[in-house]
Amino acid sequence: VPFPSIPELIKKKRDGAALTPAEIEHLVIGVARGSVESYQAAALLMAVFFRGLDDTELAAWTLAMRDSGRTLDWPGVAGARIDKHSTGGVGDKISIPLAPIAAECGLRVPMISGRGLGHTGGTLDKLESIPGFRTQLSIDEITSAVREIGVAMGGQTADLAPADKMLYALRDVTGTVESIPLIVSSILSKKLAEGLDGLVLDVKVGNGAFMKDADSARKLATRLVAAARLAGCPAVALLTAMDAPLGEACGNANEIEESIAVLRGGGPPDVAELTVALAAEMLVLGRAAGSLGDARALAKRSIDTGAALERFRKLVARQGGDPRVVDEPSRLPTAPLRAPIKAPSDGFLTSAHAGKVGLAVVALGGGRGKTSDTIDPGVGVWIRRKPGARVARGEVIYDVAYRDPGRFEVGRRLLEESIEIGPAPSPAMPLIVGRIDG
Amino acid sequence: VPFPSIPELIKKKRDGAALTPAEIEHLVIGVARGSVESYQAAALLMAVFFRGLDDTELAAWTLAMRDSGRTLDWPGVAGARIDKHSTGGVGDKISIPLAPIAAECGLRVPMISGRGLGHTGGTLDKLESIPGFRTQLSIDEITSAVREIGVAMGGQTADLAPADKMLYALRDVTGTVESIPLIVSSILSKKLAEGLDGLVLDVKVGNGAFMKDADSARKLATRLVAAARLAGCPAVALLTAMDAPLGEACGNANEIEESIAVLRGGGPPDVAELTVALAAEMLVLGRAAGSLGDARALAKRSIDTGAALERFRKLVARQGGDPRVVDEPSRLPTAPLRAPIKAPSDGFLTSAHAGKVGLAVVALGGGRGKTSDTIDPGVGVWIRRKPGARVARGEVIYDVAYRDPGRFEVGRRLLEESIEIGPAPSPAMPLIVGRIDG
Repeated sequence: VPFPSIPELIKKKRDGAALTPAEIEHLVIGVARGSVESYQAAALLMAVFFRGLDDTELAAWTLAMRDSGRTLDWPGVAGARIDKHSTGGVGDKISIPLAPIAAECGLRVPMISGRGLGHTGGTLDKLESIPGFRTQLSIDEITSAVREIGVAMGGQTADLAPADKMLYALRDVTGTVESIPLIVSSILSKKLAEGLDGLVLDVKVGNGAFMKDADSARKLATRLVAAARLAGCPAVALLTAMDAPLGEACGNANEIEESIAVLRGGGPPDVAELTVALAAEMLVLGRAAGSLGDARALAKRSIDTGAALERFRKLVARQGGDPRVVDEPSRLPTAPLRAPIKAPSDGFLTSAHAGKVGLAVVALGGGRGKTSDTIDPGVGVWIRRKPGARVARGEVIYDVAYRDPGRFEVGRRLLEESIEIGPAPSPAMPLIVGRIDG
Repeated sequence: VPFPSIPELIKKKRDGAALTPAEIEHLVIGVARGSVESYQAAALLMAVFFRGLDDTELAAWTLAMRDSGRTLDWPGVAGARIDKHSTGGVGDKISIPLAPIAAECGLRVPMISGRGLGHTGGTLDKLESIPGFRTQLSIDEITSAVREIGVAMGGQTADLAPADKMLYALRDVTGTVESIPLIVSSILSKKLAEGLDGLVLDVKVGNGAFMKDADSARKLATRLVAAARLAGCPAVALLTAMDAPLGEACGNANEIEESIAVLRGGGPPDVAELTVALAAEMLVLGRAAGSLGDARALAKRSIDTGAALERFRKLVARQGGDPRVVDEPSRLPTAPLRAPIKAPSDGFLTSAHAGKVGLAVVALGGGRGKTSDTIDPGVGVWIRRKPGARVARGEVIYDVAYRDPGRFEVGRRLLEESIEIGPAPSPAMPLIVGRIDG
């Protein structure tokens, strides 16, 4: 049966009918090959914005995006390939301690991450603050590293899910970013191209996250888990708090330092707890542990024995980074100037608005307003008092490392705005708000 | 105030807010100038498909399309410029007798028409069946003809409403044709570029029309009239029947012959009646008559005295056509082969499906399946028995003029399908179904 014309397929979606998997493949692969024009893709994306995609359509869309490029395969590799994806937050360095822990506990972790944009940071940017660390790995480099040391942390390559790259660029300029099924297919297509046996999703909730409330985060998580499973990849999602920054360090080099502290068994309690929780989900999905309790114990042991830190050292060395930073964090870059941001009054810290702290890091030069911006790895913010704490007027809430006084002024204003002090602590969102396991 | 970015403006429409007139002008003029990319225009068109445009937005959109190119102006010209637009039907040759009648009664008629596409014929194609007749007139040729003989009948030029041409081409390939406000703005922008004092709209209703039922036709007519008035052009719409072909001739040359018969005071009653009704609306809008009754009398007199026919002869000569066709229609091209289509049974003719007759004309070579097709002017269909007539088995319903026996076979099948015979006449749609005068 020949396919209806591209305009007919656009009209079919526009009028609310479900496209068949073959029709979706024809459209998505057509985008990658150029047989569907960019203006036709744009009209289709807007029709999807209004009409959505049902679970079958979404799985087909995701698989077509995955299959628009190369996929990783793992002949003869023992150990389940499991990865984690976060929808993005402020101070979210969890991938950095998590990947070596999971690898140390027997999983294979071919982790392909993104860069920061807007108020959210990016794992690749943080890793690149380690002198010499290379994230632009080829597919062959990723697979050989995973075979040999169980883990690789790289960026998206041109040959992985090219249809996603094209559609994402188009969504950005056509007002079609904010569509749950388009977000889901974009996230999953890249991850599924890694040839996974399972995927753990960390869906952030709060003012520093894409999803501001638990209901919408739950909807996104539910669709992510359902689509991943329909596409043949078992998945679990945690909904986690992003109303205040995660941990104490927000920036790039300082987040590496904090990640190393977690791998040493220390670090801020929220980062340590979420790392272990996500590791446990990965281990159960990959059948490296029989229960979440066993899995937590396994993950903690890898930290306590120093084995996970050792695995991280190997990862750094393998990707060209200076492994001495693991023992000497002072080898990480740091900005020359320091200033504190202080409490304006007595009371309880009721908010350290994650979104504003994230924008402050961007203002300092540690993030990107647009994709072409470069990162200054040594600037950043340390959160000295977390929401819920009793504070006195003049007490230091944040310490700031900066290079440029003009940029500091913008960052300072945002940081001051992020602080709310009240007569009593406000009820805190729990770190783990919910769990969706399909 | 600087404009929001193009993606922000697309999102504003997407999310259901009204765009300001300045924002709409920025977008539409941007399409014509290339500062809005085709994929952004496509996303915007799909957002408009879903969200619509309110009356203020629609008037602004129409004016921006008009102002994307040249507009005709008429310094020192006496007599109101009034035009007529039909939404398209089968056998609809009304413009051809109408324009000279209106000019003869004192109006100025700078009529810019379209070509046929799909089952609907086009005025330009019909006129070009007159040997030598030129429809590709420049703006200067149109204005000088209107100044000197009161009427010109040409095609859209590249410099009139170029944004409409670009957006229409884009709608055609992005599944965004079927949007009332986009249809309205497309129709009106070209007509308003003629520098009119008034516009009469003939909105067709029925199986041979874009609007299949009276309700949707009434909605389209209401928006056309409201937007034209808001854009500064008084307008009136008639809703008219298009369930069966208009008149007896469907094709090109044979429709010119029928038009001449109407200008001689003969012709099929429905064509004659609708011509006078539309002429009367034009004359009242242009203040050439004080009432519709007076206007009808004036129009009829122009026919009875032969003055309208004389005006048509001048029009033909001025545009390079052979004026002898007016007295000798045998000079019009005609296809070499003839065949009748006969009634399959006794009874009453309950339907001569206009859509199918139109497609039969296309199949014979007298219309276009796609815009690049060429027209065979001499092929066509004559309707010998109109719906409501009592017919006997074997009686001729249609006569067909054709050139290619293979094409005839396709046309014959469609014509046979168009015939319905029942035991009693079915209630006929009145010729004029309704009137919208804002």
